[in-house]
Amino acid sequence: MTERRDLSDESGVPTQNTVTLLAEDNELRSQLQQLINSKTKPLGSLGILEDLALQIGMVFKSLSPAINNPQLFVLAADHGIAAEGVSAYPQEVTGQMVANFLSGGAAINVFCRQHNIELKIVDAGVNHDFDSGLSIIDHKAAKGTASFLHGPAMQPEDLSLCFEYGSRLVHDAQKAGCNTIGFGEMGIGNTSSASVIMSYLCGIPLEECIGRGTGLADEQLKNKIKILKQASANYQVKNEIYEIMSWFGGFEIVQMTAAMLEAGRNNMLILVDGFIASVAFLCAFSIDPEIKKNAVFCHESDEKGHRLLLEYLQARPLLRLGMRLGEGTGCALAFPLIKSAVAFLNEMASFESAAVSNKA
Amino acid sequence: MTERRDLSDESGVPTQNTVTLLAEDNELRSQLQQLINSKTKPLGSLGILEDLALQIGMVFKSLSPAINNPQLFVLAADHGIAAEGVSAYPQEVTGQMVANFLSGGAAINVFCRQHNIELKIVDAGVNHDFDSGLSIIDHKAAKGTASFLHGPAMQPEDLSLCFEYGSRLVHDAQKAGCNTIGFGEMGIGNTSSASVIMSYLCGIPLEECIGRGTGLADEQLKNKIKILKQASANYQVKNEIYEIMSWFGGFEIVQMTAAMLEAGRNNMLILVDGFIASVAFLCAFSIDPEIKKNAVFCHESDEKGHRLLLEYLQARPLLRLGMRLGEGTGCALAFPLIKSAVAFLNEMASFESAAVSNKA
Repeated sequence: MTERRDLSDESGVPTQNTVTLLAEDNELRSQLQQLINSKTKPLGSLGILEDLALQIGMVFKSLSPAINNPQLFVLAADHGIAAEGVSAYPQEVTGQMVANFLSGGAAINVFCRQHNIELKIVDAGVNHDFDSGLSIIDHKAAKGTASFLHGPAMQPEDLSLCFEYGSRLVHDAQKAGCNTIGFGEMGIGNTSSASVIMSYLCGIPLEECIGRGTGLADEQLKNKIKILKQASANYQVKNEIYEIMSWFGGFEIVQMTAAMLEAGRNNMLILVDGFIASVAFLCAFSIDPEIKKNAVFCHESDEKGHRLLLEYLQARPLLRLGMRLGEGTGCALAFPLIKSAVAFLNEMASFESAAVSNKA
Repeated sequence: MTERRDLSDESGVPTQNTVTLLAEDNELRSQLQQLINSKTKPLGSLGILEDLALQIGMVFKSLSPAINNPQLFVLAADHGIAAEGVSAYPQEVTGQMVANFLSGGAAINVFCRQHNIELKIVDAGVNHDFDSGLSIIDHKAAKGTASFLHGPAMQPEDLSLCFEYGSRLVHDAQKAGCNTIGFGEMGIGNTSSASVIMSYLCGIPLEECIGRGTGLADEQLKNKIKILKQASANYQVKNEIYEIMSWFGGFEIVQMTAAMLEAGRNNMLILVDGFIASVAFLCAFSIDPEIKKNAVFCHESDEKGHRLLLEYLQARPLLRLGMRLGEGTGCALAFPLIKSAVAFLNEMASFESAAVSNKA
């Protein structure tokens, strides 16, 4: 990490190495922009797709970037806080939905099949024993976190283990030739974890970060807010990222954060899904702000805190479809747009090659 | 058309036939909604995709709808008004871009290839003689319209011919088994036609309907506004749709309107692209409001009038990517979302089939 932060070194004096890197980056950026502008279309008329093409070219350091072996990981885990009645669904739904993922019947299965994205299911800490024959990645830190109402969701050693697990996912993906990686989640109660973490890291009042999750009615939402305020009051604020992550937990959130960091270190394109995944990204961003250049924000969820979080991250999402499902569905649905950005860059004719007159 | 408008019959007394149809429709709608709600996801959590699945089921009158042989037509034509300096590009770009479409180098070629959409190029009235061997549909009404600055863009017989041509496109598509049809356009000067038509049909002040088209600078935009105001002042207002269409023209706009009407009559799904295509839709909608149930508004263009027009039509676009290219690119980019809507409806497991607990 220290290595990667050289550019913002407090000394302010860039090393020879960073100067060369910067010059190379600037050169590539200018070549990419020229290439985009040469295509047979009015300047800028492909909007966000043009920014995306530029970004992908920069991440893959190429004038003809390619998306290779895209993979999407759904990380599932249970949350002790669910016992406090913060979700519209019972806790066993986490394990049941994992079974649904494994048999191909969930939304994320459908969308990954549609777009040839390899889907991998990770047991990051579900409160259920899965049969050993199932095609699931066993990264179970424990059978769910503890409730963070009165104490930490996980112990420091769980946090370390989850960081290790997260990195491993990315290593394995890389070995399989993947350079584009998305993350989704499933975990009854996990909007509660995410809301509190967001509030601490963004400095946004807790209530503005709390939404209806899977669909709480007004009374249930009031209870969720009450519980989370109480949990927050019981936490002796140590404004330190790892402390906040382990207190408010989410095994799936921590593993996702670690995986995103590893993907960033390995120059991969990171597809960021909805509210929970964006909070995992927020944690990664707090640890290493450089990761933002690798991130594609796939959609804006209808879950209350997400719009604010995207604003905080100064992120412009590709899709706004009023969705709030998680599972990485936003990543999968935005994926064809990412491919389109690469495709126009690689395949469109230039004004010159097509003999089209440019501006009068 | 009369047949289709029975429901809004002035007598207010529905016939036996329409009562049966209405009951059948309501039954199908309720079955589709039940099916959508039964899927393993929180109620409504797929947002706009759920509305889309319902709409497509209704258009195709099926609980398991399928998108068959999707086709996209790019209609190209020239505009006499272009001679008044209302565009950033010279008129010959229309013909040059048609050549680019035919050799596969334009944005719409790239996106149609990506999504297996059959692309057809229509010469609706380009000011260029294309070689006879080219794979282009010859619906040339004339070599460009006349300038509508002082007189009508086209004669009544041109309008009739364009209506005939437009219907024919849809008949041929249907014969090829297509049930989902999109329309794009290319025509230097056509945002001028579209802006004036929009202003008349929506009753929105002309200036609010005029944008920068392919990228006018401030001074050029001022000139465009001046010219169009003058053209509008020279028109003796006859607030009649066919009169407005032939005066302000656009062979490609009229053929697109006719094609959309025909597609609506044939229970096809109509993909509506950006500003020009939405104005063509507006004309079709003015002739037959029932067509709206067949329309999917694919994106919101950055061209100034489009947001207002979508508001007027009470349409919610699928994508907002800051694009303003035309050619049907918005249709092609939104197409995977349309397929996703159909896919989740057909392929997702239900709470019951997957043995997932529903709300607590």
